[in-house]
Amino acid sequence: MDFSSFLTSLITSFVIFVVLMAFFAWLSSRPGNKVIYYPSRLLKGMDPFDGGSYASRNPFVWIREALSSSEQEVITMSGVDTAVYFVFLSTVLGILVLSGIVLLPVLLPVAATDKAPNTSSDTTSNGTFSDLDKLSMGNLAEKSSRLWAFLIATYWVSIVAYYLLWKAYKHVSALREAALMSPEVRAEQFAVLVRDIPPGPEGQTRKQQVDSYFKSIYPDAFYRSMIATDNKEVNKLYEELEGCKKKLVRAETIYAESKTTGNPEGTRPTNKIGFLGLIGKKVDSIEYYSEKIRELIPKLEAEQKATLRDKQQAAALVFFSSRVTAASAAQSLHATMLDTWNVMEAPEPRQVIWTNLTIKFFERQTRQYIIYIIVALTIFFYMIPITFVSAFTTMQNLKKYLPFLKPVVKIAAIRTVLEAYLPQIALIVFLALLPKLLLFLSKLEGIPSQSHIERAASGKYFYFTVLNVFIGVTVGGTLFATFKTIEKHPNSLLPVLAASLPGNATFFLTFVALKFFVGYGLELSRIVPLIIFHLKRKYLCKTEADIKEAWYPGDLGYATRVPGDMLIVTITLCYSVIAPLILPFGVVYFGLGWLILRNQALKVYVPSYESYGRMWPHMHMRILAALLLYQLTMLAYFGAKKFYYAPLLVPVIIATLIFCYVCNKKFYGFFRYPALEVASHEMKETPHMERIFRTYVPPSLCSEKVEDDQFEDAMSQVSRAGSFA
Amino acid sequence: MDFSSFLTSLITSFVIFVVLMAFFAWLSSRPGNKVIYYPSRLLKGMDPFDGGSYASRNPFVWIREALSSSEQEVITMSGVDTAVYFVFLSTVLGILVLSGIVLLPVLLPVAATDKAPNTSSDTTSNGTFSDLDKLSMGNLAEKSSRLWAFLIATYWVSIVAYYLLWKAYKHVSALREAALMSPEVRAEQFAVLVRDIPPGPEGQTRKQQVDSYFKSIYPDAFYRSMIATDNKEVNKLYEELEGCKKKLVRAETIYAESKTTGNPEGTRPTNKIGFLGLIGKKVDSIEYYSEKIRELIPKLEAEQKATLRDKQQAAALVFFSSRVTAASAAQSLHATMLDTWNVMEAPEPRQVIWTNLTIKFFERQTRQYIIYIIVALTIFFYMIPITFVSAFTTMQNLKKYLPFLKPVVKIAAIRTVLEAYLPQIALIVFLALLPKLLLFLSKLEGIPSQSHIERAASGKYFYFTVLNVFIGVTVGGTLFATFKTIEKHPNSLLPVLAASLPGNATFFLTFVALKFFVGYGLELSRIVPLIIFHLKRKYLCKTEADIKEAWYPGDLGYATRVPGDMLIVTITLCYSVIAPLILPFGVVYFGLGWLILRNQALKVYVPSYESYGRMWPHMHMRILAALLLYQLTMLAYFGAKKFYYAPLLVPVIIATLIFCYVCNKKFYGFFRYPALEVASHEMKETPHMERIFRTYVPPSLCSEKVEDDQFEDAMSQVSRAGSFA
Repeated sequence: MDFSSFLTSLITSFVIFVVLMAFFAWLSSRPGNKVIYYPSRLLKGMDPFDGGSYASRNPFVWIREALSSSEQEVITMSGVDTAVYFVFLSTVLGILVLSGIVLLPVLLPVAATDKAPNTSSDTTSNGTFSDLDKLSMGNLAEKSSRLWAFLIATYWVSIVAYYLLWKAYKHVSALREAALMSPEVRAEQFAVLVRDIPPGPEGQTRKQQVDSYFKSIYPDAFYRSMIATDNKEVNKLYEELEGCKKKLVRAETIYAESKTTGNPEGTRPTNKIGFLGLIGKKVDSIEYYSEKIRELIPKLEAEQKATLRDKQQAAALVFFSSRVTAASAAQSLHATMLDTWNVMEAPEPRQVIWTNLTIKFFERQTRQYIIYIIVALTIFFYMIPITFVSAFTTMQNLKKYLPFLKPVVKIAAIRTVLEAYLPQIALIVFLALLPKLLLFLSKLEGIPSQSHIERAASGKYFYFTVLNVFIGVTVGGTLFATFKTIEKHPNSLLPVLAASLPGNATFFLTFVALKFFVGYGLELSRIVPLIIFHLKRKYLCKTEADIKEAWYPGDLGYATRVPGDMLIVTITLCYSVIAPLILPFGVVYFGLGWLILRNQALKVYVPSYESYGRMWPHMHMRILAALLLYQLTMLAYFGAKKFYYAPLLVPVIIATLIFCYVCNKKFYGFFRYPALEVASHEMKETPHMERIFRTYVPPSLCSEKVEDDQFEDAMSQVSRAGSFA
Repeated sequence: MDFSSFLTSLITSFVIFVVLMAFFAWLSSRPGNKVIYYPSRLLKGMDPFDGGSYASRNPFVWIREALSSSEQEVITMSGVDTAVYFVFLSTVLGILVLSGIVLLPVLLPVAATDKAPNTSSDTTSNGTFSDLDKLSMGNLAEKSSRLWAFLIATYWVSIVAYYLLWKAYKHVSALREAALMSPEVRAEQFAVLVRDIPPGPEGQTRKQQVDSYFKSIYPDAFYRSMIATDNKEVNKLYEELEGCKKKLVRAETIYAESKTTGNPEGTRPTNKIGFLGLIGKKVDSIEYYSEKIRELIPKLEAEQKATLRDKQQAAALVFFSSRVTAASAAQSLHATMLDTWNVMEAPEPRQVIWTNLTIKFFERQTRQYIIYIIVALTIFFYMIPITFVSAFTTMQNLKKYLPFLKPVVKIAAIRTVLEAYLPQIALIVFLALLPKLLLFLSKLEGIPSQSHIERAASGKYFYFTVLNVFIGVTVGGTLFATFKTIEKHPNSLLPVLAASLPGNATFFLTFVALKFFVGYGLELSRIVPLIIFHLKRKYLCKTEADIKEAWYPGDLGYATRVPGDMLIVTITLCYSVIAPLILPFGVVYFGLGWLILRNQALKVYVPSYESYGRMWPHMHMRILAALLLYQLTMLAYFGAKKFYYAPLLVPVIIATLIFCYVCNKKFYGFFRYPALEVASHEMKETPHMERIFRTYVPPSLCSEKVEDDQFEDAMSQVSRAGSFA
């Protein structure tokens, strides 16, 4: 890529960004769009703007608001997880800024003024050398003593990273500590999840078994237990009922609306009761759904009773009246065999994956390893499914399997386009499906909470992006492009690599710029959700609930966002010394990201769970992995430059490993388990245990009529033994 | 080694064994030796023999007694650890017997009747083929279809091992469970060890800090704490005092004895007060020591007070009034930073290593890794220190550094002997010192309990013996012997190895036989302790306490015994299929070992600690390691035999890894942490907390005069907060 095409690409991206910003400034000031640009504030019952009308509003005031917002505000609006995400952004920003301040003024002149012409450019057939590459390490002669500056720069970047990561880990620990010791009652702090309950003695229900087990160990603090039940049937009925209720409301709304327009009787809405409402008998909707609801309610109630009584599974939630006891129970071994009575922290009520609770210990282990293998294969051979899809989507096969497409395919123009783009479309579809696939695979592992699934998927996605995008483009591209040269002179591999690394830097500069200009432009302007919302409101939404569902913002989406950022961290770190010009781009990416996401966190996204910063150790580890990759790259590159002092980089690699080990040992424990000194902090009020218990009851089992104490079912109250002191 | 020399060696060993047995039969029936052959029963206040006089006693009755003893008797006499050691012995015995029953009648005829002459014997310059080797796998032709029998045999041995190891692990878990849930009060079940206590607030003693910390987390169950103190000074004074007391008793005994013999006044014993009692002023011993004791007592008391008040360290033992709370506290994270308030199970009072308690978290980690590196280097380069010692002990250097030896060295005969044997003596001394060195190194790791140190040292010793003795002799010996052949024809390496493996089998047969005949003969007859005891009693012992000290038996010595047995397990397993003739030898080793050690456990050894079977996971892992080594050896050997179906052994190797993983996951947790369901079993009586606390007070700090409640010192009683319920 030469300099002019680099500039073209940069300018194009920038223009798109400016256009999107203009869109945002215009659209966000229209009152009708406030549900798109301020949904989080609206849901919390706050005024979208703190005072001021729409008209008088400066379109850039959001920048001031984002900059002046405190961490506490972020926690209040969007939870600890989001605050931790900002710690991540600002830590990386800090590393890049501190590196840039030293590296740019020092390394650029050192590289640009080297008089020795680069000899290795002769060996590559089509030189990728441009004006930009003169500012990189590639411009230095082999064995040049100027390489010392780059060696010291490598150390500087590492030391800055250690310092800021250490500070960040401490800070995140403190955030987590503050959140966990908060005097407010949080249900999950009073519960533990019990899995792998062994078969009980004859004639005892699961409920009795669990109660007697935990009562004997915790005579004072045990409150009651909730046995996981097989909710498949009851969920089906419940969803059917809810669907009918929704449709009834919708039919009533339509009927009410039809009344006003000169037709005082109105038109009673009708629907067909066959497949997808397309075929079958036509019925009056209001009557039909009312009748169905009347039928379903007793059915559901009967099923609820049957589920609670007969479908008790080998997993349970156990509630304690003390936070410390719950925290201590969650990390203690209860039975002598680890595959029975496995106790762990309870997930938040909203993130419990009920279907995963009952998977047995060794089945979980087996699933985990099988999925690791599948993911590893996916990462390494991700081209294979695409090739498979491409093969299937060739013209011949399409005609064979989907004969109705024949007339379309026969048109020459369409045919050419399809033949050219089908494989690429398959690739794009596969790449777009990958996060979903990884989430699905992670869920299959048997993980009991949503946040954990997202962490697991995010980790897998990180390896995928780093291996396929970064290493793939750098090493793979270089190797393929110069395969013939290498075949002829095997010894020229290193100089070729050395010449290509800076060349790829320009490609990545463009990539990062595209990512932040277009990516963050789309993020802030929310063009896509805006269009979808307006379309939905116009054509689909009938009731208030429908409209709310249409604009409900969703969460930040860690599972894909964090690996995306991580890829930029990896690229920027790896090229920070080789081509320091990438540093400003990285700074802009994380600076702009921080600013725009701050706005989104405060005003748009609504967290779907809270894990109190559990994502941090993953982020920390992956930043360190990027740092290690960077140091190894530098070691190889200094080797390629035939710099005799390259082994001086070995200590910094060892230092990274030690740093990683120390951080893990010192901090990680608290992210796995709740520390007792934190849990022992005093509460604001005596916890209302019944309310805590209720938050965990799945909606399909909530009923006013099913009384707890009537029979020995999965939820019934236990007569508490008198506590002894 | 040919057949006749093999027989000679076997017969010699057997004769030694018979002689030692005769010694045992004769010596053990003499009343004066009962302190050597029945010390454990004497210490427990039991009759050495259950009825019957010495004379009428059948000298082989011990065999009947050992065979008829139950596991419960072993636990009563010698503890759970010893019972677990017998589980180990009988498991290995079971594996070898079940393997032998199938392998011997099948494989020996298959090997012996193979008509194909062994071609590979031509390639080795001096053939090691003998009659014995005809019974081994080496006698089979390459690619012979008879190898199928050996392949199936490999599977059979593995399956037998899995089955018996699984049963054994379950059994040991049950033993540990029964011991830990026993209704008897055991002090260590009510205490936890707290390390890495962070610096407390100004003006607060450690004691106050620890008490307030644990009282806030465990308001109900916290009893009191004992701060570790720097006991160096007080220990010195205490030992001096105890020494003086001992010498006073001895002097009084001598004086009393001297009175009887016609000299009614008696001779007052005297001693010199200079260096080692050799020089200086002569004084009256009784007066001198009485005076010294009078001086030392107030000094010690002052030092005790000062130690308790001013020398409090950053570690403590915390006592709880409930077993469950202690068990749960021992496995819970207390502080957010893992390197502060580190809580773990308390060791037994008698095995606390006080000096290790105060080592900081990261210092422990660092020490551990450094020591791992040192041990790895010792294992791989264990010849280097020996060479160093040998170099120092050459004639020239000896003359130079120890000139007074010159006249001795000048004598030609002595000189020759010394030159020939000094390196070997250095080797023997180094090998004898190795267990001590490993114990010393393991102690340096900062481990807080004696049993853990012995486990750690035993693990290190296992790797040493397997790597240096087994692999060293087999591979190393073969490689060196045939180095020239290989150099000429590199491809002949595999056939050479294949030819040598069975040859080495004969060497190991002899080795195992020597081990059990001579080793167990010495063990049972206790010739060495007997001689030492009689010498000591005659020349050194003056008082009753001295005599008791002279015959006090010590414990079984796991740290060296288990690795020794493990070496035999490794050898026997690895050769079980190659040369099945080794199986009977292994069976005799473990059968005889079981029988003789059963006698020793019931009548001789006194356990010095109890870890409730914590040694088992180590034994289990190492048996599996031996099994894996065996399977890998077989894979290589089948490869050397050019057997095309050799890769069929890969599944069994994977099965071993999975078996190891499953066992670790399922059982190991309970050996690391006390399970709460076990700890929650009811006690026989309400524990006497003050007595429990007292057992942990080091003897040097025990004093009638230092009253606890006088001041805020490291042990003072805390006014307990009223419990709330």
